[in-house]
Amino acid sequence: MSRDDTPYKTYLAEDELPCAWYNMRADMAQKPAPLLNPATLEPVTAEELERVFCTELVKQELDDTTPYVPIPDEVMRFYRMFRPSPLVRAYFLEKALGTPARIYYKFEGNNTSGSHKLNSAVAQAYYAKKQGLKGVTTETGAGQWGTALSMACAFFGLDCQVYMVKCSYEQKPFRREVMRTYGARVTPSPSMLTEAGRRINAEHPGTTGSLGCAISEAVEAAVSQEGYRYVLGSVLAQVLLHQSIIGLEAKAAFDKIGDSPDVVIGCAGGGSNLGGLIAPFMGEKLRGECDRRFVAVEPASCPSFTRGRYAYDFCDTAKVCPLQKMYTLGSGFMPSANHAGGLRYHGMSATLSELYSQKAMEAVAVEQTSVFEAARMFARTEGILPAPESSHAIRATIDEALRCKSEGREECILFGLTGTGYFDMTAYQKFNDGEMSDTVPTDAELEANFAQLPKV
Amino acid sequence: MSRDDTPYKTYLAEDELPCAWYNMRADMAQKPAPLLNPATLEPVTAEELERVFCTELVKQELDDTTPYVPIPDEVMRFYRMFRPSPLVRAYFLEKALGTPARIYYKFEGNNTSGSHKLNSAVAQAYYAKKQGLKGVTTETGAGQWGTALSMACAFFGLDCQVYMVKCSYEQKPFRREVMRTYGARVTPSPSMLTEAGRRINAEHPGTTGSLGCAISEAVEAAVSQEGYRYVLGSVLAQVLLHQSIIGLEAKAAFDKIGDSPDVVIGCAGGGSNLGGLIAPFMGEKLRGECDRRFVAVEPASCPSFTRGRYAYDFCDTAKVCPLQKMYTLGSGFMPSANHAGGLRYHGMSATLSELYSQKAMEAVAVEQTSVFEAARMFARTEGILPAPESSHAIRATIDEALRCKSEGREECILFGLTGTGYFDMTAYQKFNDGEMSDTVPTDAELEANFAQLPKV
Repeated sequence: MSRDDTPYKTYLAEDELPCAWYNMRADMAQKPAPLLNPATLEPVTAEELERVFCTELVKQELDDTTPYVPIPDEVMRFYRMFRPSPLVRAYFLEKALGTPARIYYKFEGNNTSGSHKLNSAVAQAYYAKKQGLKGVTTETGAGQWGTALSMACAFFGLDCQVYMVKCSYEQKPFRREVMRTYGARVTPSPSMLTEAGRRINAEHPGTTGSLGCAISEAVEAAVSQEGYRYVLGSVLAQVLLHQSIIGLEAKAAFDKIGDSPDVVIGCAGGGSNLGGLIAPFMGEKLRGECDRRFVAVEPASCPSFTRGRYAYDFCDTAKVCPLQKMYTLGSGFMPSANHAGGLRYHGMSATLSELYSQKAMEAVAVEQTSVFEAARMFARTEGILPAPESSHAIRATIDEALRCKSEGREECILFGLTGTGYFDMTAYQKFNDGEMSDTVPTDAELEANFAQLPKV
Repeated sequence: MSRDDTPYKTYLAEDELPCAWYNMRADMAQKPAPLLNPATLEPVTAEELERVFCTELVKQELDDTTPYVPIPDEVMRFYRMFRPSPLVRAYFLEKALGTPARIYYKFEGNNTSGSHKLNSAVAQAYYAKKQGLKGVTTETGAGQWGTALSMACAFFGLDCQVYMVKCSYEQKPFRREVMRTYGARVTPSPSMLTEAGRRINAEHPGTTGSLGCAISEAVEAAVSQEGYRYVLGSVLAQVLLHQSIIGLEAKAAFDKIGDSPDVVIGCAGGGSNLGGLIAPFMGEKLRGECDRRFVAVEPASCPSFTRGRYAYDFCDTAKVCPLQKMYTLGSGFMPSANHAGGLRYHGMSATLSELYSQKAMEAVAVEQTSVFEAARMFARTEGILPAPESSHAIRATIDEALRCKSEGREECILFGLTGTGYFDMTAYQKFNDGEMSDTVPTDAELEANFAQLPKV
């Protein structure tokens, strides 16, 4: 097709919105490995999971054969509040790079949670409400997930208890305040409200927390309160299922304008955005209908795919969650300071891990100063100030577009612009002031953590 | 039409975007009074204005007869980056209020400047670039305008110097950082860089500044640097012209869905949003094609319309700008602390002032605690965290919708949702903590300021 006749932004009409989520696992010949009970090391049962998670969500978690799951009407109603998100043609960025590549991004940041996280938060809150629960507990790192869940719980009238990694709680008071405006109770983690928190505080006085630790607290809070369950914003297969709305909408928009991506790029923390964005495109590849590349982008400071091990590991610090086979840096891995809080998790989605191990997907690790250079260029050309997490995908996209330029190839690149950076200005300030640095773990550090992997 | 068959969000297609701005003054029988030279008190000439403002913008400022001004291609290109904005049907708010009214809002907050300000910033930066200028200077209060101008200048390759009211500079470091990311130089006002700033600092040691003072500094900086002009984000007729894109798009969307507003509501600081939103709807009324109500909403702490005088007054503290006939509280009026920084200006658009004096428009003043109650309700039902300024319009809309409920009337209400509140979380925190209060000026305070109005 001609390079210049696609619209700047493509919005689906409301009656063109996908009405079912797509379960990528259904098309995988080799399925992701099952979750294991941390006590018995046997595959975890639905009954065991239902003590922690909502019943319907457990069903979705364990179902790796049903390809399409209808989106409930009440979730569709909420989706219409902030969806469809636009598929944007990055004409300005293309011009600035002088690339023959066509660059598109699916922009998920135009909602008050500031990211794609709302897609799964709505679904999870809906199922919790439908089950008759009083409320849900969760953890949040950078705060996008906690904000999204607060919004969803306010809508469905559920109590929302958020354990927020202490350093984020302190560095991002405004994110906390958005959650409070939506009625959530936000507690800095590790707290003194849970056994897990008290133990971590005793063992590591003055610690500013970690996602793994906040997960432990939130799970404990869920199982110790009547009428509560725990919900999680990434990593799990159910989350990727809900997030498939990103890719499904993107694919429908591409079909509408008559284009199709050769490369799909997304940042990868736990995998919620990447798994959702690539879903239908990967489905085509898995079914042998077409070939294309998929690129996961992770921070060099937390390189789960590019330097991790594919092994069973714990998802949380207190080791109360099921074990998952995934690319991992070890549950004790503490990433160095990095401003992409949403990408600082030691593990990775089991589905994506399996796809990566099958070489259906590639991965690159990028350093944060080069990420912020890309972010600034994108902000100035495309007019959107991106979240640090999303900017990892921008970095890789620019690199791919420059490769296309040097090779003279007119490829079509799609990347996920997961969110906006309005609550990340401390990071931008560091970058603007020239005070941002890069650190990567040493091989010795990684080996020490690998040595602690559970023997399964 | 049936209540429930309009879409949640209506987006115009790119080829449906308005391609000319609408100049409301062309349809006014009684035009706004001319600007006066502050030294001579004679109507200001184009030549005098061109020392301060860009040439093409002066032409637009003084032209009160041409109804439509074509939008330049380069501005249209930039508009496509963030426009069209959606016309949203507030189904969730309607349901929460149990009102028979149909509520719509035109949402201008989904761009990185966070507000409608970008509509005029792009136009002004374009004309400055076209004139061959090196850069522009401006002031900013809450920071939306400064951010918008920074984005526009980055796009067109212009230097951007922003004088930011000192209390905002200190309270909103993140807004400042967004401007810096776009390459702007941001200076807290009053500064020691200008004569005006040094004088104000000497006369009022420790002052945290005001918009009037920052305007004086920015104007001085423009006229004292070769190749610079001053640009302003509100009040002026040229700004209302550019902002008419809001109303034109809204009207086109209403035509598309077959509805039409009975009441149009907008917050009013200097009038940029309100004047732009109402433009084509007021045009119809001025031409006698239909009748409908228009409601300006202002803070009770800065009640220019509802308690001000319609008189010639200075636009800035140092009295270097032209005098304008407008509703004013006096250029020496210092509004009490209010979190809607964008509404704390002593004066008002001359065009809107004339319309209000002709009773073509109504005005209401609302107190900020009731504004934040409305904001919280809106955030929880409609999923968008509104800016404090915009929330003034939400307050009035809720009040109108409740009136419709008590009167059993199915009116159609349109309001302007000018921006998002992501950089206003300090205000939300005060509200969430129950620490927000209301203050209104006493009659004696206002009279003392009215006594200082220039004798024209």
